[in-house]
Amino acid sequence: MRPTLRQRIALDMDDVMADTLTVWLDRYNQDFGTRITKADLLGKKLYDLVGPDRVAAARAYLDRPEFFLDLPLMEGSQMVVKRLSETYEVFVTSAALDHPNSFSAKYAWLKKHFPFIPDKNIVFCGDKSVIRADFMVDDSVPNLKAFIGQGLVFTAPHNALDIGFPRVNGWVDIARYFGVVESFI
Amino acid sequence: MRPTLRQRIALDMDDVMADTLTVWLDRYNQDFGTRITKADLLGKKLYDLVGPDRVAAARAYLDRPEFFLDLPLMEGSQMVVKRLSETYEVFVTSAALDHPNSFSAKYAWLKKHFPFIPDKNIVFCGDKSVIRADFMVDDSVPNLKAFIGQGLVFTAPHNALDIGFPRVNGWVDIARYFGVVESFI
Repeated sequence: MRPTLRQRIALDMDDVMADTLTVWLDRYNQDFGTRITKADLLGKKLYDLVGPDRVAAARAYLDRPEFFLDLPLMEGSQMVVKRLSETYEVFVTSAALDHPNSFSAKYAWLKKHFPFIPDKNIVFCGDKSVIRADFMVDDSVPNLKAFIGQGLVFTAPHNALDIGFPRVNGWVDIARYFGVVESFI
Repeated sequence: MRPTLRQRIALDMDDVMADTLTVWLDRYNQDFGTRITKADLLGKKLYDLVGPDRVAAARAYLDRPEFFLDLPLMEGSQMVVKRLSETYEVFVTSAALDHPNSFSAKYAWLKKHFPFIPDKNIVFCGDKSVIRADFMVDDSVPNLKAFIGQGLVFTAPHNALDIGFPRVNGWVDIARYFGVVESFI
Protein backbone atom coordinates (compact mmCIF):
# COMPACT_ATOMS: atom_id res chain seq x y z
CA MET A 1 0.00 0.00 0.00
CA ARG A 2 1.24 3.43 -0.96
CA PRO A 3 1.32 6.14 1.67
CA THR A 4 -0.31 9.35 0.47
CA LEU A 5 1.84 12.12 1.80
CA ARG A 6 0.25 14.96 -0.14
CA GLN A 7 -3.39 15.43 -0.99
CA ARG A 8 -4.15 14.85 -4.62
CA ILE A 9 -6.13 17.13 -6.95
CA ALA A 10 -7.49 15.88 -10.28
CA LEU A 11 -7.96 18.71 -12.78
CA ASP A 12 -10.14 18.52 -15.84
CA MET A 13 -8.70 19.98 -19.03
CA ASP A 14 -11.48 21.23 -21.32
CA ASP A 15 -13.32 24.25 -19.92
CA VAL A 16 -11.19 24.16 -16.77
CA MET A 17 -7.55 24.46 -17.86
CA ALA A 18 -8.37 25.27 -21.51
CA ASP A 19 -11.06 27.64 -22.71
CA THR A 20 -12.63 25.13 -25.07
CA LEU A 21 -16.15 26.54 -25.20
CA THR A 22 -15.17 30.00 -26.45
CA VAL A 23 -13.36 28.56 -29.46
CA TRP A 24 -16.01 25.95 -30.16
CA LEU A 25 -18.80 28.52 -30.09
CA ASP A 26 -16.87 30.99 -32.27
CA ARG A 27 -16.18 28.42 -34.92
CA TYR A 28 -19.71 27.09 -34.93
CA ASN A 29 -21.22 30.59 -35.15
CA GLN A 30 -18.85 31.54 -37.94
CA ASP A 31 -19.49 28.41 -40.02
CA PHE A 32 -23.26 28.34 -39.54
CA GLY A 33 -23.97 32.07 -39.45
CA THR A 34 -25.52 31.85 -35.98
CA ARG A 35 -25.07 34.16 -32.99
CA ILE A 36 -25.25 31.74 -30.10
CA THR A 37 -23.79 33.31 -26.94
CA LYS A 38 -22.68 31.80 -23.65
CA ALA A 39 -25.81 33.35 -22.07
CA ASP A 40 -27.92 31.25 -24.45
CA LEU A 41 -26.21 28.15 -23.10
CA LEU A 42 -27.32 28.62 -19.51
CA GLY A 43 -28.14 25.14 -18.21
CA LYS A 44 -27.69 23.71 -21.71
CA LYS A 45 -25.08 22.08 -23.90
CA LEU A 46 -24.40 23.38 -27.39
CA TYR A 47 -25.87 20.11 -28.62
CA ASP A 48 -29.22 20.97 -26.98
CA LEU A 49 -29.35 24.31 -28.72
CA VAL A 50 -28.33 23.60 -32.30
CA GLY A 51 -31.16 21.21 -33.05
CA PRO A 52 -30.92 17.48 -33.79
CA ASP A 53 -29.86 17.95 -37.42
CA ARG A 54 -26.74 19.85 -36.40
CA VAL A 55 -25.52 17.79 -33.42
CA ALA A 56 -23.14 15.80 -35.62
CA ALA A 57 -21.80 18.98 -37.22
CA ALA A 58 -21.25 20.59 -33.80
CA ARG A 59 -19.53 17.47 -32.53
CA ALA A 60 -17.27 17.26 -35.59
CA TYR A 61 -15.21 20.23 -34.35
CA LEU A 62 -14.12 18.19 -31.33
CA ASP A 63 -13.21 15.19 -33.47
CA ARG A 64 -10.55 17.20 -35.33
CA PRO A 65 -7.25 16.85 -33.49
CA GLU A 66 -6.09 20.35 -34.52
CA PHE A 67 -8.96 21.80 -32.52
CA PHE A 68 -7.27 20.91 -29.24
CA LEU A 69 -3.80 22.06 -30.28
CA ASP A 70 -4.37 25.80 -30.13
CA LEU A 71 -6.94 26.27 -27.38
CA PRO A 72 -6.39 29.36 -25.25
CA LEU A 73 -5.67 28.96 -21.57
CA MET A 74 -8.40 29.55 -19.03
CA GLU A 75 -7.36 32.77 -17.29
CA GLY A 76 -5.02 32.17 -14.37
CA SER A 77 -4.78 28.43 -14.91
CA GLN A 78 -1.03 28.25 -15.51
CA MET A 79 -0.08 30.25 -12.46
CA VAL A 80 -2.50 28.56 -10.08
CA VAL A 81 -1.70 25.03 -11.27
CA LYS A 82 1.97 25.82 -10.73
CA ARG A 83 1.26 26.98 -7.16
CA LEU A 84 -0.98 23.99 -6.44
CA SER A 85 1.81 21.67 -7.62
CA GLU A 86 4.06 22.98 -4.88
CA THR A 87 1.69 21.79 -2.14
CA TYR A 88 -0.50 19.11 -3.71
CA GLU A 89 -0.12 16.20 -6.08
CA VAL A 90 -1.71 17.57 -9.24
CA PHE A 91 -3.08 15.18 -11.88
CA VAL A 92 -4.69 16.16 -15.16
CA THR A 93 -7.65 13.88 -15.81
CA SER A 94 -9.13 14.47 -19.23
CA ALA A 95 -12.07 12.55 -20.69
CA ALA A 96 -10.07 12.27 -23.90
CA LEU A 97 -11.77 8.97 -24.75
CA ASP A 98 -14.83 11.01 -25.76
CA HIS A 99 -12.76 12.06 -28.77
CA PRO A 100 -10.13 9.36 -29.33
CA ASN A 101 -8.46 11.34 -32.12
CA SER A 102 -7.51 13.98 -29.62
CA PHE A 103 -4.90 12.18 -27.47
CA SER A 104 -1.79 13.52 -29.17
CA ALA A 105 -3.08 17.07 -29.55
CA LYS A 106 -4.17 17.21 -25.91
CA TYR A 107 -0.82 15.85 -24.82
CA ALA A 108 1.04 18.41 -26.96
CA TRP A 109 -1.10 21.22 -25.55
CA LEU A 110 -0.34 20.14 -21.99
CA LYS A 111 3.40 19.89 -22.64
CA LYS A 112 3.35 23.38 -24.18
CA HIS A 113 1.41 25.17 -21.48
CA PHE A 114 2.04 23.04 -18.38
CA PRO A 115 5.55 21.61 -18.91
CA PHE A 116 5.99 21.30 -15.16
CA ILE A 117 3.30 18.62 -14.91
CA PRO A 118 5.11 15.27 -15.26
CA ASP A 119 3.86 12.77 -17.84
CA LYS A 120 3.08 10.28 -15.12
CA ASN A 121 0.48 12.72 -13.73
CA ILE A 122 -1.50 12.89 -16.99
CA VAL A 123 -4.55 10.63 -17.34
CA PHE A 124 -6.72 10.21 -20.43
CA CYS A 125 -9.86 8.40 -19.40
CA GLY A 126 -13.58 8.10 -19.97
CA ASP A 127 -15.52 7.23 -16.82
CA LYS A 128 -14.00 9.40 -14.08
CA SER A 129 -15.10 7.03 -11.33
CA VAL A 130 -11.79 5.28 -12.07
CA ILE A 131 -9.81 8.24 -10.66
CA ARG A 132 -8.43 7.99 -7.15
CA ALA A 133 -7.83 11.46 -5.79
CA ASP A 134 -8.89 13.64 -2.90
CA PHE A 135 -10.34 16.47 -4.99
CA MET A 136 -11.62 16.82 -8.53
CA VAL A 137 -12.19 20.11 -10.36
CA ASP A 138 -14.44 19.57 -13.36
CA ASP A 139 -17.14 21.42 -15.29
CA SER A 140 -19.12 18.21 -15.77
CA VAL A 141 -21.51 17.41 -12.94
CA PRO A 142 -21.86 13.76 -14.10
CA ASN A 143 -18.06 13.43 -13.84
CA LEU A 144 -18.15 14.83 -10.32
CA LYS A 145 -21.00 12.52 -9.34
CA ALA A 146 -19.01 9.51 -10.55
CA PHE A 147 -15.95 10.59 -8.56
CA ILE A 148 -15.29 9.26 -5.07
CA GLY A 149 -13.83 12.27 -3.32
CA GLN A 150 -14.59 15.97 -3.00
CA GLY A 151 -15.84 17.41 -6.27
CA LEU A 152 -15.68 21.10 -7.16
CA VAL A 153 -17.74 22.32 -10.08
CA PHE A 154 -15.92 24.79 -12.33
CA THR A 155 -18.53 27.22 -13.58
CA ALA A 156 -19.53 26.91 -17.21
CA PRO A 157 -22.82 27.98 -18.78
CA HIS A 158 -24.11 24.40 -18.99
CA ASN A 159 -23.63 23.76 -15.24
CA ALA A 160 -24.58 27.24 -13.97
CA LEU A 161 -27.91 26.01 -12.61
CA ASP A 162 -26.55 22.86 -10.94
CA ILE A 163 -26.31 22.62 -7.20
CA GLY A 164 -24.80 19.92 -5.04
CA PHE A 165 -21.08 20.68 -5.38
CA PRO A 166 -19.01 23.60 -4.09
CA ARG A 167 -18.61 25.98 -7.01
CA VAL A 168 -15.47 27.71 -8.26
CA ASN A 169 -15.85 30.65 -10.65
CA GLY A 170 -12.41 30.53 -12.19
CA TRP A 171 -8.85 29.96 -11.05
CA VAL A 172 -8.68 32.64 -8.36
CA ASP A 173 -11.49 30.78 -6.60
CA ILE A 174 -9.53 27.54 -6.92
CA ALA A 175 -6.46 29.20 -5.43
CA ARG A 176 -8.59 30.44 -2.52
CA TYR A 177 -10.22 27.06 -1.96
CA PHE A 178 -6.87 25.29 -1.74
CA GLY A 179 -5.20 28.02 0.29
CA VAL A 180 -2.52 29.03 -2.22
CA VAL A 181 -3.94 32.47 -2.96
CA GLU A 182 -1.47 34.40 -0.85
CA SER A 183 1.45 33.13 -2.84
CA PHE A 184 0.49 34.90 -6.06
CA ILE A 185 -1.84 37.78 -5.25
CA MET B 1 -21.07 9.35 -4.25
CA ARG B 2 -21.30 6.57 -6.75
CA PRO B 3 -22.46 3.16 -5.58
CA THR B 4 -20.15 0.39 -6.75
CA LEU B 5 -22.39 -2.50 -7.64
CA ARG B 6 -19.80 -4.67 -9.34
CA GLN B 7 -16.19 -5.18 -8.36
CA ARG B 8 -13.76 -3.51 -10.70
CA ILE B 9 -10.69 -5.06 -12.31
CA ALA B 10 -7.97 -2.89 -13.89
CA LEU B 11 -6.05 -4.76 -16.59
CA ASP B 12 -2.66 -3.76 -17.89
CA MET B 13 -2.19 -3.95 -21.65
CA ASP B 14 1.48 -4.61 -22.50
CA ASP B 15 2.65 -8.07 -21.46
CA VAL B 16 -0.77 -8.83 -19.98
CA MET B 17 -3.34 -8.43 -22.79
CA ALA B 18 -0.74 -8.06 -25.55
CA ASP B 19 2.42 -10.12 -25.95
CA THR B 20 4.71 -7.14 -26.22
CA LEU B 21 7.95 -8.72 -25.02
CA THR B 22 8.04 -11.47 -27.66
CA VAL B 23 7.87 -8.95 -30.50
CA TRP B 24 10.26 -6.50 -28.87
CA LEU B 25 12.86 -9.23 -28.26
CA ASP B 26 12.50 -10.64 -31.80
CA ARG B 27 13.00 -7.26 -33.42
CA TYR B 28 15.93 -6.35 -31.22
CA ASN B 29 17.65 -9.70 -31.79
CA GLN B 30 17.10 -9.44 -35.53
CA ASP B 31 18.39 -5.88 -35.83
CA PHE B 32 21.40 -6.32 -33.54
CA GLY B 33 22.32 -9.92 -34.36
CA THR B 34 21.89 -11.00 -30.74
CA ARG B 35 20.21 -14.11 -29.34
CA ILE B 36 18.70 -12.84 -26.12
CA THR B 37 16.03 -15.21 -24.84
CA LYS B 38 13.29 -14.79 -22.28
CA ALA B 39 15.31 -17.05 -19.97
CA ASP B 40 18.15 -14.50 -20.11
CA LEU B 41 15.71 -11.88 -18.85
CA LEU B 42 14.91 -13.63 -15.57
CA GLY B 43 14.64 -10.87 -12.99
CA LYS B 44 15.87 -8.32 -15.53
CA LYS B 45 14.58 -5.82 -18.03
CA LEU B 46 15.86 -5.81 -21.59
CA TYR B 47 17.45 -2.46 -20.75
CA ASP B 48 19.58 -4.13 -18.05
CA LEU B 49 20.88 -6.70 -20.48
CA VAL B 50 21.72 -4.75 -23.61
CA GLY B 51 24.31 -2.51 -22.02
CA PRO B 52 24.15 1.26 -21.49
CA ASP B 53 25.09 2.12 -25.08
CA ARG B 54 22.05 0.31 -26.46
CA VAL B 55 19.34 1.35 -24.00
CA ALA B 56 18.18 4.17 -26.29
CA ALA B 57 18.12 1.84 -29.30
CA ALA B 58 16.08 -0.74 -27.37
CA ARG B 59 13.69 1.92 -26.19
CA ALA B 60 13.24 3.34 -29.69
CA TYR B 61 11.14 0.32 -30.72
CA LEU B 62 8.49 1.32 -28.17
CA ASP B 63 8.50 4.93 -29.35
CA ARG B 64 7.34 3.92 -32.83
CA PRO B 65 3.54 3.94 -32.89
CA GLU B 66 3.37 1.09 -35.46
CA PHE B 67 4.99 -1.19 -32.91
CA PHE B 68 1.80 -1.29 -30.83
CA LEU B 69 -0.56 -1.71 -33.79
CA ASP B 70 0.20 -5.33 -34.62
CA LEU B 71 1.08 -6.91 -31.31
CA PRO B 72 -0.18 -10.46 -30.90
CA LEU B 73 -2.67 -11.24 -28.17
CA MET B 74 -1.54 -12.90 -24.99
CA GLU B 75 -3.00 -16.40 -25.19
CA GLY B 76 -6.52 -16.61 -23.84
CA SER B 77 -6.82 -12.89 -23.13
CA GLN B 78 -9.77 -12.17 -25.42
CA MET B 79 -11.94 -14.99 -24.11
CA VAL B 80 -11.20 -14.41 -20.43
CA VAL B 81 -11.61 -10.62 -20.62
CA LYS B 82 -14.98 -11.23 -22.28
CA ARG B 83 -16.05 -13.55 -19.46
CA LEU B 84 -14.74 -11.20 -16.79
CA SER B 85 -16.77 -8.36 -18.34
CA GLU B 86 -19.98 -10.29 -17.70
CA THR B 87 -19.41 -10.31 -13.93
CA TYR B 88 -16.98 -7.48 -13.21
CA GLU B 89 -16.39 -3.92 -14.33
CA VAL B 90 -13.30 -4.29 -16.51
CA PHE B 91 -11.03 -1.30 -17.14
CA VAL B 92 -7.91 -1.26 -19.29
CA THR B 93 -5.25 0.81 -17.56
CA SER B 94 -2.21 1.26 -19.75
CA ALA B 95 0.87 3.25 -18.80
CA ALA B 96 0.73 4.79 -22.28
CA LEU B 97 2.32 8.00 -21.00
CA ASP B 98 5.66 6.14 -20.96
CA HIS B 99 5.47 6.35 -24.76
CA PRO B 100 3.24 9.32 -25.63
CA ASN B 101 3.39 8.54 -29.36
CA SER B 102 1.55 5.32 -28.70
CA PHE B 103 -1.94 6.52 -27.71
CA SER B 104 -3.65 6.13 -31.07
CA ALA B 105 -2.01 2.81 -31.89
CA LYS B 106 -2.88 1.38 -28.51
CA TYR B 107 -6.44 2.60 -28.85
CA ALA B 108 -6.73 1.07 -32.34
CA TRP B 109 -5.33 -2.24 -31.09
CA LEU B 110 -7.86 -2.34 -28.25
CA LYS B 111 -10.78 -1.55 -30.56
CA LYS B 112 -9.65 -4.31 -32.93
CA HIS B 113 -9.16 -7.07 -30.39
CA PHE B 114 -11.45 -6.02 -27.52
CA PRO B 115 -14.35 -4.21 -29.22
CA PHE B 116 -16.63 -5.10 -26.34
CA ILE B 117 -14.68 -2.91 -23.90
CA PRO B 118 -16.38 0.50 -23.98
CA ASP B 119 -14.24 3.60 -24.58
CA LYS B 120 -15.17 4.94 -21.16
CA ASN B 121 -13.39 1.96 -19.58
CA ILE B 122 -10.05 2.71 -21.25
CA VAL B 123 -7.45 4.65 -19.27
CA PHE B 124 -4.09 5.88 -20.50
CA CYS B 125 -2.07 6.94 -17.51
CA GLY B 126 1.39 7.06 -15.99
CA ASP B 127 1.42 6.65 -12.22
CA LYS B 128 -1.07 3.85 -11.50
CA SER B 129 -1.70 5.06 -7.98
CA VAL B 130 -4.36 7.25 -9.63
CA ILE B 131 -6.47 4.19 -10.48
CA ARG B 132 -9.45 3.38 -8.29
CA ALA B 133 -10.33 -0.28 -8.67
CA ASP B 134 -10.67 -3.39 -6.53
CA PHE B 135 -8.10 -5.48 -8.42
CA MET B 136 -5.20 -4.74 -10.72
CA VAL B 137 -3.50 -7.28 -13.00
CA ASP B 138 -0.10 -5.98 -14.10
CA ASP B 139 3.35 -7.32 -14.91
CA SER B 140 5.00 -4.33 -13.23
CA VAL B 141 5.59 -4.74 -9.50
CA PRO B 142 6.12 -0.96 -9.05
CA ASN B 143 2.68 -0.38 -10.63
CA LEU B 144 1.13 -2.88 -8.23
CA LYS B 145 2.88 -1.32 -5.26
CA ALA B 146 1.48 2.10 -6.23
CA PHE B 147 -2.03 0.70 -6.53
CA ILE B 148 -4.46 0.87 -3.62
CA GLY B 149 -6.34 -2.41 -3.94
CA GLN B 150 -5.50 -6.06 -4.53
CA GLY B 151 -2.66 -6.44 -7.01
CA LEU B 152 -2.00 -9.60 -9.03
CA VAL B 153 1.36 -9.94 -10.74
CA PHE B 154 1.14 -11.35 -14.27
CA THR B 155 4.24 -13.46 -14.76
CA ALA B 156 6.89 -12.05 -17.07
CA PRO B 157 10.61 -12.83 -17.04
CA HIS B 158 11.48 -9.53 -15.38
CA ASN B 159 9.14 -10.14 -12.41
CA ALA B 160 9.65 -13.91 -12.07
CA LEU B 161 11.72 -13.52 -8.91
CA ASP B 162 9.43 -11.01 -7.21
CA ILE B 163 7.34 -11.99 -4.26
CA GLY B 164 4.69 -10.05 -2.39
CA PHE B 165 1.72 -10.28 -4.78
CA PRO B 166 -0.43 -13.27 -5.75
CA ARG B 167 0.91 -14.50 -9.09
CA VAL B 168 -1.02 -15.41 -12.23
CA ASN B 169 0.79 -17.41 -14.92
CA GLY B 170 -1.42 -16.47 -17.82
CA TRP B 171 -5.11 -15.98 -18.50
CA VAL B 172 -6.35 -19.38 -17.33
CA ASP B 173 -4.98 -18.49 -13.91
CA ILE B 174 -6.81 -15.15 -14.06
CA ALA B 175 -10.05 -16.93 -14.96
CA ARG B 176 -9.56 -19.25 -11.99
CA TYR B 177 -8.74 -16.43 -9.59
CA PHE B 178 -11.91 -14.52 -10.50
CA GLY B 179 -14.11 -17.61 -10.63
CA VAL B 180 -15.04 -17.46 -14.30
CA VAL B 181 -13.12 -20.58 -15.35
CA GLU B 182 -16.14 -22.87 -15.48
CA SER B 183 -17.79 -20.74 -18.12
CA PHE B 184 -15.21 -21.43 -20.81
CA ILE B 185 -13.34 -24.65 -20.00
